[in-house]
Amino acid sequence: MDIEKEKRAQVLIEALPYIQKYYGKIVVVKYGGNAMVNAELKKAVMGDIVLLSLIGIKVVLVHGGGPEITGMLSRLGVESKFIDGLRVTDAQTAEVVQMVLAGKTNKDLVNLIQSIGGSAIGLSGMDGHLIMAKKKDERLGFVGEITKVNIRPVTDLLDRGYIPVISTVGCDTEGNVYNINADTAASRIAGALGAESLISMSDIPGILADMSDPGSLIREIDIAEVGGMIAGGVISGGMIPKADCCVEAVRCGVKKVFIIDGRVPHSILVELLTDEGVGTMFISREGSK
Amino acid sequence: MDIEKEKRAQVLIEALPYIQKYYGKIVVVKYGGNAMVNAELKKAVMGDIVLLSLIGIKVVLVHGGGPEITGMLSRLGVESKFIDGLRVTDAQTAEVVQMVLAGKTNKDLVNLIQSIGGSAIGLSGMDGHLIMAKKKDERLGFVGEITKVNIRPVTDLLDRGYIPVISTVGCDTEGNVYNINADTAASRIAGALGAESLISMSDIPGILADMSDPGSLIREIDIAEVGGMIAGGVISGGMIPKADCCVEAVRCGVKKVFIIDGRVPHSILVELLTDEGVGTMFISREGSK
Amino acid sequence: MDIEKEKRAQVLIEALPYIQKYYGKIVVVKYGGNAMVNAELKKAVMGDIVLLSLIGIKVVLVHGGGPEITGMLSRLGVESKFIDGLRVTDAQTAEVVQMVLAGKTNKDLVNLIQSIGGSAIGLSGMDGHLIMAKKKDERLGFVGEITKVNIRPVTDLLDRGYIPVISTVGCDTEGNVYNINADTAASRIAGALGAESLISMSDIPGILADMSDPGSLIREIDIAEVGGMIAGGVISGGMIPKADCCVEAVRCGVKKVFIIDGRVPHSILVELLTDEGVGTMFISREGSK
Amino acid sequence: MDIEKEKRAQVLIEALPYIQKYYGKIVVVKYGGNAMVNAELKKAVMGDIVLLSLIGIKVVLVHGGGPEITGMLSRLGVESKFIDGLRVTDAQTAEVVQMVLAGKTNKDLVNLIQSIGGSAIGLSGMDGHLIMAKKKDERLGFVGEITKVNIRPVTDLLDRGYIPVISTVGCDTEGNVYNINADTAASRIAGALGAESLISMSDIPGILADMSDPGSLIREIDIAEVGGMIAGGVISGGMIPKADCCVEAVRCGVKKVFIIDGRVPHSILVELLTDEGVGTMFISREGSK
Amino acid sequence: MDIEKEKRAQVLIEALPYIQKYYGKIVVVKYGGNAMVNAELKKAVMGDIVLLSLIGIKVVLVHGGGPEITGMLSRLGVESKFIDGLRVTDAQTAEVVQMVLAGKTNKDLVNLIQSIGGSAIGLSGMDGHLIMAKKKDERLGFVGEITKVNIRPVTDLLDRGYIPVISTVGCDTEGNVYNINADTAASRIAGALGAESLISMSDIPGILADMSDPGSLIREIDIAEVGGMIAGGVISGGMIPKADCCVEAVRCGVKKVFIIDGRVPHSILVELLTDEGVGTMFISREGSK
Amino acid sequence: MDIEKEKRAQVLIEALPYIQKYYGKIVVVKYGGNAMVNAELKKAVMGDIVLLSLIGIKVVLVHGGGPEITGMLSRLGVESKFIDGLRVTDAQTAEVVQMVLAGKTNKDLVNLIQSIGGSAIGLSGMDGHLIMAKKKDERLGFVGEITKVNIRPVTDLLDRGYIPVISTVGCDTEGNVYNINADTAASRIAGALGAESLISMSDIPGILADMSDPGSLIREIDIAEVGGMIAGGVISGGMIPKADCCVEAVRCGVKKVFIIDGRVPHSILVELLTDEGVGTMFISREGSK
Repeated sequence: MDIEKEKRAQVLIEALPYIQKYYGKIVVVKYGGNAMVNAELKKAVMGDIVLLSLIGIKVVLVHGGGPEITGMLSRLGVESKFIDGLRVTDAQTAEVVQMVLAGKTNKDLVNLIQSIGGSAIGLSGMDGHLIMAKKKDERLGFVGEITKVNIRPVTDLLDRGYIPVISTVGCDTEGNVYNINADTAASRIAGALGAESLISMSDIPGILADMSDPGSLIREIDIAEVGGMIAGGVISGGMIPKADCCVEAVRCGVKKVFIIDGRVPHSILVELLTDEGVGTMFISREGSK
Repeated sequence: MDIEKEKRAQVLIEALPYIQKYYGKIVVVKYGGNAMVNAELKKAVMGDIVLLSLIGIKVVLVHGGGPEITGMLSRLGVESKFIDGLRVTDAQTAEVVQMVLAGKTNKDLVNLIQSIGGSAIGLSGMDGHLIMAKKKDERLGFVGEITKVNIRPVTDLLDRGYIPVISTVGCDTEGNVYNINADTAASRIAGALGAESLISMSDIPGILADMSDPGSLIREIDIAEVGGMIAGGVISGGMIPKADCCVEAVRCGVKKVFIIDGRVPHSILVELLTDEGVGTMFISREGSK
Repeated sequence: MDIEKEKRAQVLIEALPYIQKYYGKIVVVKYGGNAMVNAELKKAVMGDIVLLSLIGIKVVLVHGGGPEITGMLSRLGVESKFIDGLRVTDAQTAEVVQMVLAGKTNKDLVNLIQSIGGSAIGLSGMDGHLIMAKKKDERLGFVGEITKVNIRPVTDLLDRGYIPVISTVGCDTEGNVYNINADTAASRIAGALGAESLISMSDIPGILADMSDPGSLIREIDIAEVGGMIAGGVISGGMIPKADCCVEAVRCGVKKVFIIDGRVPHSILVELLTDEGVGTMFISREGSK
Repeated sequence: MDIEKEKRAQVLIEALPYIQKYYGKIVVVKYGGNAMVNAELKKAVMGDIVLLSLIGIKVVLVHGGGPEITGMLSRLGVESKFIDGLRVTDAQTAEVVQMVLAGKTNKDLVNLIQSIGGSAIGLSGMDGHLIMAKKKDERLGFVGEITKVNIRPVTDLLDRGYIPVISTVGCDTEGNVYNINADTAASRIAGALGAESLISMSDIPGILADMSDPGSLIREIDIAEVGGMIAGGVISGGMIPKADCCVEAVRCGVKKVFIIDGRVPHSILVELLTDEGVGTMFISREGSK
Repeated sequence: MDIEKEKRAQVLIEALPYIQKYYGKIVVVKYGGNAMVNAELKKAVMGDIVLLSLIGIKVVLVHGGGPEITGMLSRLGVESKFIDGLRVTDAQTAEVVQMVLAGKTNKDLVNLIQSIGGSAIGLSGMDGHLIMAKKKDERLGFVGEITKVNIRPVTDLLDRGYIPVISTVGCDTEGNVYNINADTAASRIAGALGAESLISMSDIPGILADMSDPGSLIREIDIAEVGGMIAGGVISGGMIPKADCCVEAVRCGVKKVFIIDGRVPHSILVELLTDEGVGTMFISREGSK
Repeated sequence: MDIEKEKRAQVLIEALPYIQKYYGKIVVVKYGGNAMVNAELKKAVMGDIVLLSLIGIKVVLVHGGGPEITGMLSRLGVESKFIDGLRVTDAQTAEVVQMVLAGKTNKDLVNLIQSIGGSAIGLSGMDGHLIMAKKKDERLGFVGEITKVNIRPVTDLLDRGYIPVISTVGCDTEGNVYNINADTAASRIAGALGAESLISMSDIPGILADMSDPGSLIREIDIAEVGGMIAGGVISGGMIPKADCCVEAVRCGVKKVFIIDGRVPHSILVELLTDEGVGTMFISREGSK
């Protein structure tokens, strides 16, 4: 037998303890950024999702939008207004967000998972009123703050063996729709599910002790340390809201929250099924006492 | 007790035999036309759907698009080409159809049903690969012919107590999406479900013996008679494909197929729960032997 | 479409929120008085019961006896003795009560429900030892005080979709049978079931502020007020034990207890499915805190 | 250890193969005659029923009336008319039959079984419309011929672990009740249940080759032989309809039908759980091929 | 009917209250001693086990070894070393114990139960890691002290209707096997199962107040009295560890623990199904308060 | 990311289609030969079994004996007689076979699987009378021919998530035990289970076109060709009975039967989860028409 075959078997057998660990557990994957734009990466991520699903992990995919929304807004000539640097979501914009997220991005992902051999059903915040929301700030229009998560549609689909794919459009009972931050929604959904892990795919390697040194990746952060790391500037800029979501998720009961590099092919598999993690893990040492 | 109360009770109690008849049965409602455009009618139809669902009928809602697609195509400046009078659905058009149908129309209906108090989850043909399709005619582009209906997502949702709301966008395993005729899809889905009834809402009172006389409504048609009625001109124009779908549904095993007037408020309730039907019923006398 | 059809649909659709409210809930109906004697009213009540059952309400019917017992006692020449104005139930009388209640009244009701299209099974206190009793007062003979309610036969029948019809004959393990007050039994059974509502059909419109003015109906009474109302004479005579049963039922955990006018056709439907209640509702504002 | 203890154990252990044979099988016991009149025998039979139920046999008890009906008719001064020697059941008589059978005999048996420690629910032909009937002969009034057996109430109760106790009063959808021959009803019910055995308790030892010689008991009769035995006078008089019922039950699919001597204490146990049968068994050798 | 038949029925019917009492309960039988050596007794015990199983008792059989182990050790020329009078179980001895117990004794019992008509599956401590152990005393080698009981394999088999037959060989995750005292193992397993009863078969009639007088059998002992009885010499010698196991089992939650005379045929049946117990019962009066 | 990580992920993701293919399917592994003797290989095989089990394959392990039996026979001084070159299994030998196979080999495998993290329960042919047998040839003693396979114990364990580990000792209802050929037993068990695949581990690479050339491995054989291959000498010697078992298994309904090289580490994984098969596959092209 050539060495190649042996290595293949070795990799599979080395994944065994990780498969045992996650068997039957819920893992929420927050999907976005480059991993969503690059077609090859997208296919790789969906392949990972299907593999995790087949080895007995209950995977929930939460996705945001991305350039497709911007593209459609520009094609429709909808101009974005900004207040204090924040984009205002008027009713027309919210409608475009809904169409693109729930109708295009979501269904394309579902179609891709199905074509690879998984079973997926797409949900928006309207389905089963999964994500109820209200205006966060009157001036920003339909930018939503989550008021309630009705998790039953997700657990019903998991029970029947589907991978729920969730677009983070919220709604209220008046017929309004809201643009919901996907990181926040993923945290809330993972919390409501009592998920084992939330994996947030981003365009950075994780939290770096020194932003300029990719080798300075911090592998594990206790959420009690996050405040200090923000104060000390280790976590800064766009990473602050992401880190806040991680903290929030851990507080809601998710055991481990990972920020991993979505630009690296199969980074989810490597993080979950090998002992060579690829990103930063947030946990609560206090919580696990 | 004033007469009003008595009448209310009388109406409810007279609905009893109809409720008994349909209890636990599957009824597919094909929803389109004016009933979809007029906001008040839309709310009335969704109210009917929720009521039917609560009295133990398993309702499946299949909807088409309507003016929203045309509006979006025109806003995006997508020009429609025609071949022999038939609109060509190129990839760009198909994408818009998908976005509007699966992202806007579908989710708005789901949201409305939920707000009235029903439980609904929206599905497209991509979810669970519900509607698989291929090109019908190479020249027409992504106008789809159904190759397979995977009905499990629909029965899974019915089992869990949801009203499945289905947008008729088809797909294949290559990632293509197809515009599917909603009447055809409803027939195929009703057949696959072994539905008790398929109710097709349209903008006419039903089949009229004399098109110019609304009083000439034909209440019941054996599908064996349809050929003769087309030949004789009783069924003509746009009614021919609709009638064909009704025949097809009955042949696929649906017991009763109705064409009812969607412009009349609560016409579904009147057809199903009173002895004053409002449209034309297609059955197979041979089939029921 | 004639106005009539529209009205019919309107009534049905207006019942929607009430159907939603009671869906899957348990409603115990205490049936007696005129509604039981008049054949037409009897049929109307059973029709209401079947309708409630079909729209997803779990209905339990508890009935007393009525003139049939007196008639049979007189036909058999069994003379009633009285002590302090209370009728003594000797063994022979108890036997007649059992025969008439469990064998005639009960089975006739079951047969009527079945003939209308419902599914019913009749139970007495002996079946599954549903109502265990002992002598209340040695001098009154087999007038029973409930010692235990074994509710499983009722929940088993509800689970299988039947309407349990209960005649209130109690028993002990010595083979004795007891005449049990139907109001008391209904309260105890509703309490044991954790019923949403207990509806007590009587021959008055409800509790009137002024007995001589039918327009002075009190729509809602907090059970904390009942003592005062008895002291103040608002609740008097035969209404006192009925009111006590209502209070008892609310204390046992039934959310709402209604006294409605059984002489009015379909008063149950009007009370439960319209916003025009017809009787007096007992609740506990404290209990709902 | 004294011999007594050893014998006790021996008896139990010798019952083993019979318990294995009947485990989970349905056995219908037709109960009547002396075993029903004598209080001690009655208690013994109910004890047997409870024992069979506890060792895993699904027992259904079908009972007739007996002297209680005659007594009540005479107390009520209802005179019996006869046509060609057959008693006419007018509406008044039918009502008394219903009251006594469904209200007294049935509930007393249920109460007795419960007091011994079994779980029983009484059914009449009205409950769940178990026994539907029509007039057999217009001149005989409400003597019923079974038109349909709706077996679901019986199987529902068996599924939930109850011993169904059935009084053989039939009904139709018009509200009429019918006096049904208990032997016939037991045969039809056993057939509808696909019972393993029907045991008919009577006041004779079984079929005797020589009526005057109790030692001439025939242990096994193929139903193909019955015609000849009637012709030859071996089966005669009141035994003819009983034998006919046995034949009918075997034809309906019951594997073994026994006529046993109800006057002998615990004859059911001896027949089912020892190798010393006590009565006559009807089978179909052809049927078992 | 001859007297014999009547007696048979009498025995069966007198077993009724005991069958009711144990119905659906778990009874663990610790099997060993003479009842295991004598072929006829062995068959009698297995017959009892099958009977108990058929009348609805969930029986678990725990067995030790016996002379077969000693025989095999001697045939293999494995010499036993002793330290302070205790036999040392070296690896070679442990291997023989495992082979004989799990491969011979266990499977022979399973085969016998199956041949009598029961359903049995044999388990060792290795199966599902049922009995985890460690060395009790380094000098004694592989004499095991139980560290954990994983009870799921036993409950899984009980759920599926099997009689689990357990050989008390323990194991650890290093691949070592341990000789476990069967009395201790039975106590721990009965405790983990929350068994109703543990019946320990031994070669004495039970605890005797006067060892020389078989008539001085003590029928019931409160575990609080055991200490005093040992101090007073009533319980002495080999009975001390047995009594300790009984106390331990009661403390672990087993309601009643019996020491019965395994040399008496069918002593289990007599103890469980008649009112003439044959041995000594350990209970906790305090525990039952 | 270093190349190593990427390769790991690649291997996992490439296993995806194979995991999908076998998901929920039954795979029987016949285990024997060198893979059973070498401790490291044994651990590797058990690791493979656990991995397959965790990724949703229902694995059944059937094992034979090997040198342990011979060793024990020699240690016990049991001399083997031979008739026409075939070893005679007398009662004493059969007993040793039972002890070693069911008590030692079987339980050691179970213990190993459990220690790696799988759930296993060991079965012999006696458990649930899984393998019933009779003498094949009176002169050979207790060499068994399978008369019946009672598969329920195996499916019960699979349903509960266990890996059944089966030692191929047969039995009859007389208490005799039989030495059963493990290849034959595996074929019969796989057939009774309707297994997707039977994988037979042996000490050769598979069927070679030229025995002297390991590169001449035949990858796929239609069972219709086997006769010719034996006649032509391609399959010869000890391979003939193995090939016969493969043919038998395919005939019993197993879809694919593999002979793979048990000496190669992880050969099962490579065969099932990569596209580089390692042995010879027997199928029936006719059967799959």
